[in-house]
Amino acid sequence: MKVNRFKDNPIITPNDVSPYHENHEVIGVFNAGIAEYNGETLMLLRVAERPLSQNDNVVKASVINSSNKESKLKLIELDRQDPAYDFSDPRTIRLVEKEETAFLTSLSYVRLARSRDGQNFTVDAQPFLYPEVELEAWGIEDPRVTQIEDTYYIQYSAVSEKGVGVGLISTKDFNSYERHGLMLHPENKDVAIFPEKINGKYYALHRPVPKGIGRPEIWIAESANLLHWGNHKHLLGLSEDGWDSGRIGGGAIPFKTEKGWLEIYHAADTEDRYCLGAVLLDLDNPSKVLSKTDEPILAPEADYEVNGFFDQVVFTCGVTLQDDRIRIYYGVADTSMALAEISLKELLDKLTYEKIPEGEGI
Amino acid sequence: MKVNRFKDNPIITPNDVSPYHENHEVIGVFNAGIAEYNGETLMLLRVAERPLSQNDNVVKASVINSSNKESKLKLIELDRQDPAYDFSDPRTIRLVEKEETAFLTSLSYVRLARSRDGQNFTVDAQPFLYPEVELEAWGIEDPRVTQIEDTYYIQYSAVSEKGVGVGLISTKDFNSYERHGLMLHPENKDVAIFPEKINGKYYALHRPVPKGIGRPEIWIAESANLLHWGNHKHLLGLSEDGWDSGRIGGGAIPFKTEKGWLEIYHAADTEDRYCLGAVLLDLDNPSKVLSKTDEPILAPEADYEVNGFFDQVVFTCGVTLQDDRIRIYYGVADTSMALAEISLKELLDKLTYEKIPEGEGI
Repeated sequence: MKVNRFKDNPIITPNDVSPYHENHEVIGVFNAGIAEYNGETLMLLRVAERPLSQNDNVVKASVINSSNKESKLKLIELDRQDPAYDFSDPRTIRLVEKEETAFLTSLSYVRLARSRDGQNFTVDAQPFLYPEVELEAWGIEDPRVTQIEDTYYIQYSAVSEKGVGVGLISTKDFNSYERHGLMLHPENKDVAIFPEKINGKYYALHRPVPKGIGRPEIWIAESANLLHWGNHKHLLGLSEDGWDSGRIGGGAIPFKTEKGWLEIYHAADTEDRYCLGAVLLDLDNPSKVLSKTDEPILAPEADYEVNGFFDQVVFTCGVTLQDDRIRIYYGVADTSMALAEISLKELLDKLTYEKIPEGEGI
Repeated sequence: MKVNRFKDNPIITPNDVSPYHENHEVIGVFNAGIAEYNGETLMLLRVAERPLSQNDNVVKASVINSSNKESKLKLIELDRQDPAYDFSDPRTIRLVEKEETAFLTSLSYVRLARSRDGQNFTVDAQPFLYPEVELEAWGIEDPRVTQIEDTYYIQYSAVSEKGVGVGLISTKDFNSYERHGLMLHPENKDVAIFPEKINGKYYALHRPVPKGIGRPEIWIAESANLLHWGNHKHLLGLSEDGWDSGRIGGGAIPFKTEKGWLEIYHAADTEDRYCLGAVLLDLDNPSKVLSKTDEPILAPEADYEVNGFFDQVVFTCGVTLQDDRIRIYYGVADTSMALAEISLKELLDKLTYEKIPEGEGI
């Protein structure tokens, strides 16, 4: 299948965004949710900022202290030689004895970027969504946006020491917004709410990460009001080997085609190489899988996809659709944003029907 | 605080219950949900059955194959010498290389026991709730029962290779019933739905088990219809050491007192010794913790609590209340059911207010 990467990729990089916090650097501008509003394409950028450290032996981490009215940003300083901590993962600082995550190395929040042509974006100077509550103390990550009539529902990872849950915020104008708390409890992320009711119910894809039994796979839930979710069903599992054997999760907001609901999702292998795949769900019953791609539709190949803060990642939170053209906005290497186009018809032709395991999605 | 253990404890043991499955033995009759119906006290017993094996080198496991209309019970046979499996845990058989649970050693379902005096019980010969769907293929465990008007809502662990989620079933007569699917996705258990709406919303305690960040602690969620749940909040955390430093979770269905909603929950230390504690929640806003017990109100001390299939466990799924007397029905050592009485007044007096960490429950 032909994938047209945009010639000016990556379209936004950390160099294009000035840090919001003093004495911090922007290390990632990625995994943006996509909305079409008021004639513009909006990217809800996940911006990750890391505190600068003048001393290589001092490791700093920033968290939000929501109960402190004056200075919400709290700077942690750790001694790199302290044997209580493991600093080897670029994303997290771990407590050695308890085998727990102590801090993240960066703090994420959401900033808007706006474009008339969907290709050239201008980034807002101020955050749009900033951590405000205890369950977001470690950041707001990977937003996705579902438009239902004139309201935009933003689903995002709410990260804190209590876990990674799924926060829900609604807005009508991308200026003011309303918080609805966690729509799903930890550990869960990669939620994608369908853009309309199906047989009287709302649906959402989600990706729990169970500890004792089970794998990081795609589930589907239903709701009467978008705030409360239930009747959870397992939708799509890992393969035993290959590109989708490590973890899979929702990507873009699903969109309607003649053949079914089309979802472009992400899958990683056991080496943490992230690709994009597609799955087609029944129009009347989206908990039924009709078909899926055997091979990735987009894999990390370009230099900006292969090399970055976390190598070998393509990861989408949103697409736009115009006639036969699917524009995939995707984060690359946990660092920047890129853009690629594929043909809807070619993608539907690529979906295969014979590889769905029996009982899957039922 | 005075705890009156019933003199005939344990009140139900595996010897009192004949296996439902051919060539199986009952290894546990425990963790029963409690309901008061039609002048009787009902115990919804978790019955765990294990396949008999004539050959010590053959390890058997039973699972439910819900798509097979004729014979739902599927017997797995494994070679005890097979290095691919780890048989060292009495509860699970693990895949060594993938570090995953392959099977449970027993299959649980729910059987009713009935009593006029709340002390002497007769066990039904047939199961009441039996695994019927793919997400229950490894069993139905630890039921809890909330009466709301004339309907009884049964919350239970639905266990399968996909994970441990929370199933919901409703009944009006403990004969016919309706399935409502999973109310909470994996990994979650120890759910206790409050018996009435509070300020227009239903509430439930639950206990997620996140993999990457966070601990097995008590959360609270709200609902408009009992089927779909959201606005999840962290309620009560582990202590750094002592009796509640390993995991905590909901126990009995919370009940109303003059001082607040009283919840008797379970807590284990890092050595997996399970005790019962109590926490008082605000009457108008149960996501607010008012006070809790510093020490266990019931700890494994009697022989039947200390020794069994899994040692050192007291675990309640339900209590009854009559004037000042709280009757705690509790599973002991993952083996049998026991009964103890405590005074409501003494328990309320034992709750301390000074040990609640700042910000907890907010």
